[in-house]
Amino acid sequence: MTPTPITEAFDAVEVIAAKRDKHELTDAQIDWVVDAYTRDVVANEQMSALAMAILLNGMNRREIARWTAAMIASGERMDFSSLSWPTADKHSTGGVGDKITLPLAPLVAACGVAVPQLSGRGLGHTGGTLDKLESIPGWNAALSNEQMLHQLEDIGAVICAAGSGLAPADKKLYALRDVTATVEAIPLIASSIMSKKIAEGTGSLVLDVKVGTGAFMKNLADARELAETMVALGTDAGVKTVALLTDMSTPLGLKAGNALEVAESVEVLAGGGPADVVELTLALAREMLAAAGKTDIDPAGVLASGKAMDVWKRMITAQGGDPDAALPVSKETHTVNAPASGTLVRLDAMGVGVAAWRLGAGRSRPGEAVQAAAGVVLHAKPGDSVVEGQPLLTLHTDTPVRFARSLAALEGAFEVGDRLAGAGSVVLDRVIG
Amino acid sequence: MTPTPITEAFDAVEVIAAKRDKHELTDAQIDWVVDAYTRDVVANEQMSALAMAILLNGMNRREIARWTAAMIASGERMDFSSLSWPTADKHSTGGVGDKITLPLAPLVAACGVAVPQLSGRGLGHTGGTLDKLESIPGWNAALSNEQMLHQLEDIGAVICAAGSGLAPADKKLYALRDVTATVEAIPLIASSIMSKKIAEGTGSLVLDVKVGTGAFMKNLADARELAETMVALGTDAGVKTVALLTDMSTPLGLKAGNALEVAESVEVLAGGGPADVVELTLALAREMLAAAGKTDIDPAGVLASGKAMDVWKRMITAQGGDPDAALPVSKETHTVNAPASGTLVRLDAMGVGVAAWRLGAGRSRPGEAVQAAAGVVLHAKPGDSVVEGQPLLTLHTDTPVRFARSLAALEGAFEVGDRLAGAGSVVLDRVIG
Repeated sequence: MTPTPITEAFDAVEVIAAKRDKHELTDAQIDWVVDAYTRDVVANEQMSALAMAILLNGMNRREIARWTAAMIASGERMDFSSLSWPTADKHSTGGVGDKITLPLAPLVAACGVAVPQLSGRGLGHTGGTLDKLESIPGWNAALSNEQMLHQLEDIGAVICAAGSGLAPADKKLYALRDVTATVEAIPLIASSIMSKKIAEGTGSLVLDVKVGTGAFMKNLADARELAETMVALGTDAGVKTVALLTDMSTPLGLKAGNALEVAESVEVLAGGGPADVVELTLALAREMLAAAGKTDIDPAGVLASGKAMDVWKRMITAQGGDPDAALPVSKETHTVNAPASGTLVRLDAMGVGVAAWRLGAGRSRPGEAVQAAAGVVLHAKPGDSVVEGQPLLTLHTDTPVRFARSLAALEGAFEVGDRLAGAGSVVLDRVIG
Repeated sequence: MTPTPITEAFDAVEVIAAKRDKHELTDAQIDWVVDAYTRDVVANEQMSALAMAILLNGMNRREIARWTAAMIASGERMDFSSLSWPTADKHSTGGVGDKITLPLAPLVAACGVAVPQLSGRGLGHTGGTLDKLESIPGWNAALSNEQMLHQLEDIGAVICAAGSGLAPADKKLYALRDVTATVEAIPLIASSIMSKKIAEGTGSLVLDVKVGTGAFMKNLADARELAETMVALGTDAGVKTVALLTDMSTPLGLKAGNALEVAESVEVLAGGGPADVVELTLALAREMLAAAGKTDIDPAGVLASGKAMDVWKRMITAQGGDPDAALPVSKETHTVNAPASGTLVRLDAMGVGVAAWRLGAGRSRPGEAVQAAAGVVLHAKPGDSVVEGQPLLTLHTDTPVRFARSLAALEGAFEVGDRLAGAGSVVLDRVIG
């Protein structure tokens, strides 16, 4: 380990020490440390110490905005202004069973607003949108910028892998935070998300900030702070930004897994699907249309008309997938039955998320393969009546050795009682700029 | 960056997260993380995040004791029980002009207690004992354990480089802390010092904990906390340990540098030298003798007798040095004169330390060469009367280009006024187990 070369504008130790001692970082310090980290002049062990100091001592709004700008400046920026469509993007902070992007992107496109959805792969208990779509035979996540723009103009919706050119500082920092217990810092989460979204060049952005046991943000106050921080960052950067705070105490819909969630998304596009998935898809579609200035169209009518399903099929086909092909089915299943009769009063999102992950739906380390058919199917949701012995959950995997650890994750994760439990609305609050 | 292999007892992220979230680390977590770091299973970027979390959230006495024990267990332990002498060691937390080890080790040996002084090289504004002795022509810091034990039995005093086998976890962690702004954490400072001293196998230990502008600990409360932590660690490990809190607001003695400090140490051994250096040498000698159970001898009498000088010459000669050789003299000097007549009311230790460092007495990065003759000579100490235009400080270097930055470090570092300023005692307080 060598100190910072004296030809640099700052010394890494002095920048770390400033945040360690609860000082505000100056604009020049932030610009330098993000740039020097991208250039490998600030070492990983220095950035992780700084990230921990930021996590524990915080950053104010000015520091977060500058940090975000520095991460955007570390790479290329995209530009959708040549499109004939208005554009709106959506980002979810991650939850269990959160397949909303799949029906939402074609629905919003069918309403006349283009959706450029640059997505990632999953790590940990929350699944990745690309992993889900890759369970469709032939579907390809990797598009060039030109292919992406062409598909966006032609179809109005594209879901593909984010190129390595957008905010490379964020890419490097995110991998570091993941192994150094510095993920859970609001300034770092907000700047990570918003640097990519602003660099991507969307005209408007709707944020789905998850709250509850299955989310990063366990309580409403933290989620609101994160939402307000991101909305301010977007607004200041000229992107019309709004956030919904939505419930993640229980999984979204009835299916968590890759092919399982594609199947449920197709149900929604066909006019069916679980009520909470439909509710959240429509709520986010209305926000995206409003943010893009398109307030004359009701997405519920468009969904019912089948036009969203048409866009879905064109979008999947354009990326090499066969939307009518049968989805993979797991080799083994294991069913958990209700231990008593009564009302399902709780079904914990984190328990289900970890169970699905351990069944093979997610990965423990970057680059690991996931199982297309693995996951959890719910047969009841909180508020539903259940009868002792009826199926409550079905676990799917190709590798039955995984059942034991998956079942361990579900211990204490559900509760059948005699209390009344309302299903409630999935949308808890709304944050605007 | 890859996560911790699943064959390990813990995941690094979970240990970091525990301290991040202000939990106590368990004994098993501490044993694992220190061992796994030594084995390169816990990566530098993970340990630096943990170090920052420890710095900001602290460790309790049990955690610090366990951390120290784990660092001791990472390497070999030495054993002085075969010696015919009782042993006592001394450690200073580092200050400007702190050459006390040089006269102290031969003095205590001349009183009948052997002093095994495993020392380091300097980094930053506080000098290293080995750097100072290496200004003596021919002197060699590297001894094998056998050579060291032989010299200790034969002469009673040895000052040499610590072998790489003692507390390798600390060696690795110290280098990491140095570049990640995580040096200034009492639990990490205490465990670093005490792991080496306990592994070294001394029977008793006297700690010189510096307080003031030129020390790590800027105020008495922090210094006392560090001293109490280290005394408890030593006592619990069966090493009779005592600490003196001593003043480091102004340099010790009149000389700061390598050869300059050797010369001043020889003055003390010859019965002269500055009052504060003599006072602190005798105070530490009395503590070491008492800790080793030797209370019948007055070190002041032994110093006056010339016996300590005899041991010094034998000790230097045994390690290849010529105690009668002329010491290196700098090629250039620059004198700073008193700006007014009056009393020197302040002469800042940090200013003088940084000035000496920039003149070439210290190094900016590990492995850099130091100048034997570089440093600062003081012509007055706080409390002394000075006359306008008289020499106040003389700067010594072989490379005159260094004068400008050295003088910049002295700006505002001294003050001549008409206030009365007592010299005061250098020993501020005493902490026992």
